[in-house]
Parts: sequence; structure tokens; C-alpha cells
Amino acid sequence: MTANIAIIGFGSITRTLLASLAGNGAVRVKNIVVRPERIGAPDHSWQDARFVSSIGELEADVDTVIEAAGHAALRQHAGDVVASGRRLVLASSGALADDAFRKGLEKTARETGAEIHVVSGAIGALDALATAQIAGRQAVHYTGIKPSRAWRGTPAEHCVDLDALEAPTTFFTGSAREVARLYPANANVAATVALAGPGFDATTVSLIADPDAALNRHVVEADGVLGSFRFETTATPLSINPRTSGTTVFSILSFLNSGSNSVRLV
Amino acid sequence: MTANIAIIGFGSITRTLLASLAGNGAVRVKNIVVRPERIGAPDHSWQDARFVSSIGELEADVDTVIEAAGHAALRQHAGDVVASGRRLVLASSGALADDAFRKGLEKTARETGAEIHVVSGAIGALDALATAQIAGRQAVHYTGIKPSRAWRGTPAEHCVDLDALEAPTTFFTGSAREVARLYPANANVAATVALAGPGFDATTVSLIADPDAALNRHVVEADGVLGSFRFETTATPLSINPRTSGTTVFSILSFLNSGSNSVRLV
Repeated sequence: MTANIAIIGFGSITRTLLASLAGNGAVRVKNIVVRPERIGAPDHSWQDARFVSSIGELEADVDTVIEAAGHAALRQHAGDVVASGRRLVLASSGALADDAFRKGLEKTARETGAEIHVVSGAIGALDALATAQIAGRQAVHYTGIKPSRAWRGTPAEHCVDLDALEAPTTFFTGSAREVARLYPANANVAATVALAGPGFDATTVSLIADPDAALNRHVVEADGVLGSFRFETTATPLSINPRTSGTTVFSILSFLNSGSNSVRLV
Repeated sequence: MTANIAIIGFGSITRTLLASLAGNGAVRVKNIVVRPERIGAPDHSWQDARFVSSIGELEADVDTVIEAAGHAALRQHAGDVVASGRRLVLASSGALADDAFRKGLEKTARETGAEIHVVSGAIGALDALATAQIAGRQAVHYTGIKPSRAWRGTPAEHCVDLDALEAPTTFFTGSAREVARLYPANANVAATVALAGPGFDATTVSLIADPDAALNRHVVEADGVLGSFRFETTATPLSINPRTSGTTVFSILSFLNSGSNSVRLV
């Protein structure tokens, strides 16, 4: 079975994904969705994929659309994807903190039968969060620790003097919903944890600037009727492009690959 | 969309699962598969489910078969489930350490289009393991820590004096495959980690008896090209039946529930 897919976005995540898909006979990239003014740009080509600027222009046999383009592109195209009954696989989960937007997508998906999948990206243990959530209430806390410089250009600058920090410093504590509002460029992991767990308001978050850190770290702690768990991860940048999130690319690949595996883990 | 399911086994996992499914309109339990001599037993009934002793007797519209009965039952029935093209959701992953058995199932599944799903059960972060595995080689180590008494009746008795331990003691280090052979009753978590990660031979395992522990703990540590992570969990017994693994029941429910959720986490 071949999956015919389209990808929204042609940035570094998409390009890394395409490079990894080059020899994959089970997945065919039929369309790539970009802004209208980019169609025809010299570097905008990949094998026989046709570049388009709207979901209405996708090939009829595209069954899965992958978003790897950011919150604005997700907001622009997700409704059309789901209305067309196609499977939406999204990376920019922070945009789903907007209840009206998310509930609109869910309502349309119920009508059309479309599926909406959120990739795990830089985080993991969403399986344990989802299982605990089914069992009942759970307390979930996410901590995001990044090098001080990673927080430049965000409201963190108004909380602490990022250049003067001498030890890891918590500059924000609040809900996943507040993270999505105040730190949209850093909101996807907190949002994904919230979606798998108790939601945007009940998921609590700490954000930490660490002057000595070289890499991003993520910690999820959960406590519920089934027990407790702690997940901690440190991401290594990809050598091919240090600014691309390797975990996002490979969690999309893991999703695409699962469809062709006989034995799947749930 | 209603899922019509059958369940193999009528032990405490199945009974807890049935109690949790009682009000679930999206899932209908059509058959329960038990040993022939149990059919007609006074306590063997549940709503309008028909008890049978083989996969050949399932209702034609059963699309999903859940195994919650142990390695022997999985070995007995899994081939017939997959040959019938139905989706198999299994808890007794330790049985898949038998390469001939697992590869036979995979071959049949490719021919019939059947899916085989392994539930996460007592462990989590299988998403992160699967993503890292797609990215390339990873080193994965699983540590199982149980109260000393939990290891009675296993080969651990020949390694240490379980009743005389005064501190947590590692009595086994080896591969997930060796665990499946030597500790079959304790093999499912190690096997599930191996299946999501680098396989039964490359996944290393430590088993620890802890005289002061009241609960089971599980730790997964992984290191690969995308980075590293550590997942640690402590399971609380269910008050309704302390011997039933709540995480297994609820990870099956989480799987069944995901089919009716518009937004899914992958």
C-alpha cells in the first residue's frame, strides 16, 4: 500500500523529511503547499511533486497532508484539509491552544471522518499520558529548559536579564495555555503534552533559562491513579542542519512508517 | 463508528476492561474466547457477548481481537486472528521474542492486511523509542525493579537469597531475549521496549530485587543520534483488584478510544 501525501511548507523540516523519504517506496509526495509567490521559485522543486498554494489544488489521490510550516500555515490550511476528509498530520500543535480553532477542526473531522494526528516531535511518553488520562484525573507538569540565548526575543527578556544569568533560572510558571499565548514560538511541546494529558488549562509549565546549557531539555512529570512517571529528554541537533528539529522530522517518518509495519506499538 | 471486538481471555484484565467498557457506545464486545471447558460456566457471561473457544467461531463483523490472556493463549490464537485479516491488539508481547512465531505473524499480516498492535501496558515512551529507531541505531537499556517477593518462583532464587536482601540487588543483566526465555512471566515490558526499539538482542536489561520496595518500577534509558531520554514509572495497583495491571487495562482502553477521537497523538 502506497501512501500519497502532501506536505505544507518547504522549510528545513520538509527538506530533511524529503531527503529521508527519497528511497521510500511506500510514500509518494504528490504536492507541496507553499505561499503563492513561491511557486516557480528556482529552488522550489522536488522529484515530480507539484507545488500548489491551496488544499483545493491537491491531487485527488492525496490521502494524508503533513503540516511542517508553523502556526500561521496550520491555521490557514487545516480547515480545508479536514473538510476534504483527508488525514491531517500536524507538527504545530501550539496553534490548537485556540479552543475555537481546535473545536472547529474536531467538529469538521467528525462530519467528514478525517483523522487529525499530532506528532510527538521533541517530546515522548505521550502514550503514558494518554493511558493515564483515560484512567482518570492526573496532575501533569512540563518543564522546558533551554540555553539562555534561546529565549532572546521572547517575554522572558522582561522577566530576567538573560545575559547576566549565572545559574538555571525559572522565569515562567503557568499553564500550557499561557505558554501558547506568551511564547508561541516555544509552545509546541507544552501544547502536545497538554493535548495528550489533561488539557491546556490543567497542564502546568515551568520555563527555565540555563546559561550553561548547550542543548534543549524537556521534562514531563505526571501523577495519577495508575501511578506516576517522569520523562526527560535532551535533543541533539542534526548535523545536516543544526536548526532543524530532528525529532520532529523523525516522528513524522515514524508515523508514515507505522502504516507499513505489521507490528505497531500503541 | 462502532468497533466490534472480541477479547481472548476472561481473567482480571478482561473483567476490568469490560467494567470500563460498560457505558462505551463506540465499542461492542461480541465474543469472548476462553478454553472449551469454561464455556457455560456460571460466571462466564457478560451482557450479550457470546463465549467461544476458537477464532473460527467469532461473529463475522468482529474487526478487532484483543489478547489479554497470556503467552500460551496468544500463541494458540494469534495466527488465526491475523489469517482472518482482523486487527490484533496484544498485551503478551513477551511471546514475540520467539522469532519464528513473530515473523510468521508478520508474514501472514502482510498477506491479509491485518494489523498487529502491541499495547504499551506498564511502560511508556514507546513513541520516543520508535522515533529514535527510525533515525538510526540507538542504545537502549531497560531496568525492572520489583519487591523481592515478586521474584519468588523465578530463576532469581538461584542468583540471590531473596529473603536475605538488605538493599536493592541486581540479579540479572542480559538481553531482552534472555529475559523472555528465563523470566517469561516478567518479560512483557522488556519485550515491548525491545519491539519499539532496537530488538530483542540489542536491548539490554537489568532486573533488580528491592527488599524495601512496595511497588514495581520500570526505567527505560535510550541514547541515539537524536539525543537521549530517560523514562521512569512507578505503578500503583488498582484498588478494585491489586493483582490486575491497571496500566495494561487502560492502555487497551486508550487504544480503543483513539479510534473515536478526532485528535490523536502519535
